[in-house]
Amino acid sequence: MSLRLGIDLGGTNVRVGLVDEKGTILEIIQEPTEAEKGHIHTINKMKQMIESLVKGNKVKGIGIGAPGPLDIKNGVILSPPNLPGWDEIPLVKIFEEHFEVEVFLNNDANVAGLAEANAGSGAGHESVYYMTVSTGIGGALIINKQLFNGANGYAGEIGNMIIEPDGYKHNNLNRGALEGLASGTSIGRRAYEEFGIEGGAKQVFHLAKQGNKEAQLIIDETVKFLAIGIANITHVVNPDLFVVGGGVMESKQFILTPLKDKVKEFVYPQLASSIKIVPTALGGQAGVIGAAMLVR
Amino acid sequence: MSLRLGIDLGGTNVRVGLVDEKGTILEIIQEPTEAEKGHIHTINKMKQMIESLVKGNKVKGIGIGAPGPLDIKNGVILSPPNLPGWDEIPLVKIFEEHFEVEVFLNNDANVAGLAEANAGSGAGHESVYYMTVSTGIGGALIINKQLFNGANGYAGEIGNMIIEPDGYKHNNLNRGALEGLASGTSIGRRAYEEFGIEGGAKQVFHLAKQGNKEAQLIIDETVKFLAIGIANITHVVNPDLFVVGGGVMESKQFILTPLKDKVKEFVYPQLASSIKIVPTALGGQAGVIGAAMLVR
Repeated sequence: MSLRLGIDLGGTNVRVGLVDEKGTILEIIQEPTEAEKGHIHTINKMKQMIESLVKGNKVKGIGIGAPGPLDIKNGVILSPPNLPGWDEIPLVKIFEEHFEVEVFLNNDANVAGLAEANAGSGAGHESVYYMTVSTGIGGALIINKQLFNGANGYAGEIGNMIIEPDGYKHNNLNRGALEGLASGTSIGRRAYEEFGIEGGAKQVFHLAKQGNKEAQLIIDETVKFLAIGIANITHVVNPDLFVVGGGVMESKQFILTPLKDKVKEFVYPQLASSIKIVPTALGGQAGVIGAAMLVR
Repeated sequence: MSLRLGIDLGGTNVRVGLVDEKGTILEIIQEPTEAEKGHIHTINKMKQMIESLVKGNKVKGIGIGAPGPLDIKNGVILSPPNLPGWDEIPLVKIFEEHFEVEVFLNNDANVAGLAEANAGSGAGHESVYYMTVSTGIGGALIINKQLFNGANGYAGEIGNMIIEPDGYKHNNLNRGALEGLASGTSIGRRAYEEFGIEGGAKQVFHLAKQGNKEAQLIIDETVKFLAIGIANITHVVNPDLFVVGGGVMESKQFILTPLKDKVKEFVYPQLASSIKIVPTALGGQAGVIGAAMLVR
């Protein structure tokens, strides 16, 4: 049995798992990240977590999923908004020197997508496009069980795909980018701007359940934007399967089911019945499993 | 030396070449397609052309590039607008039974992209996105020297990518699809609709050269649409290189040069200097060379 360590480094919690070659978690531990105490504090904590899991086991390598932006090739955490104060931290080098095994780093969406493609809903498919829609929107392309990072590690950065050239400008993204239109944050924003609905995406779904037509309109728009995103990805790479997750996608009734129908309107008729969209299967464990799968 | 036959079946002419394993054309012949005389006439003509090239040579296989829509997997020409009357023609089966070698079929844009990626401007790159902008807009994704057709053969169908959800509806494409906004045909349409300029794309470029501001505005719009298309492809697959061709792209001054600048506005700042866009290198020979490269 070939063991790997998978680390899911989030803004709130860090989780470390001992994972076998099939992606099964043998043991997993979690601690608060405490990013505000500085990167050295968190890195030392991760080292202790790793040591407590490794014990006498021989480990093939360590994989880390972290919030972007990252320099994947050189294994450096740049300046993630979710890890304030972590500027240009060479995490791969730090761990490689300490543990003397190979260490791999990739962004959280890519890592979750890798897990879903190989051990979750995408298992058995040649090409999988993963899409996560929650506070933000991220994605990943997995071909033949491997992440396709692209030339600069930006494959899967679908949150920045332009859907409406003159649309809303969100943070440092393009005007009319998918994330600025269809993320949880954007659902809340549009609901407030268009109809004065307060309370964010959660309240929009709550009102829609009660039959509120304005909330339903916001949801219809969201479904349309997501459908255009999926249709555009289809006409660029035509993956075997879309695996969709994240808080917004969890609403089968209001998002996932109408989305499957809506996508058909935006692809060639002969393709309409062939687009496969399925929900994620691994839940919160995808991060640790996918991180371990970075180890080759 | 391993020889292949490459067939470039177009609406006007059919060209057949004897090509070596490196993609060098050893001999090439051309005849008018005469599609109006029916598919049997043209198929018989192609058989004769093949026989005149093969002579005593041993040929590894035959590759065919044809206008879509096609059923790539089953080697069937469906009902291409450019080959009127060719409905569900099983071209691969017909040639395999006649010549007793393996025969491969793919669409003309994919085939040209394959040639450019392996023997043209893309040579030496791991992932290449090919884009052709002329009467229509087509594309192809080539990864590790192989066409990435996608689940249903629709990878590279970037003409149908939605750029403006409420934009113009062209033929059977999506409302606001790239081809309906930025193809040669669409340049002519917009010039006429917006400013009454007659004479199509050619006249638009002619007027722009003379300093006509309205024509320049149409060109600026075109460049913007194409830049959004390239940025979207980047955020989906982030290819190593874009190879761009077709009549519209041939204008370095008005299209290619401003396009390279415009793309920078639509990608993350840290990515702006990394997007590589180069013109095609093989010209009209890409069809025959790429068709031969379909042979594995």
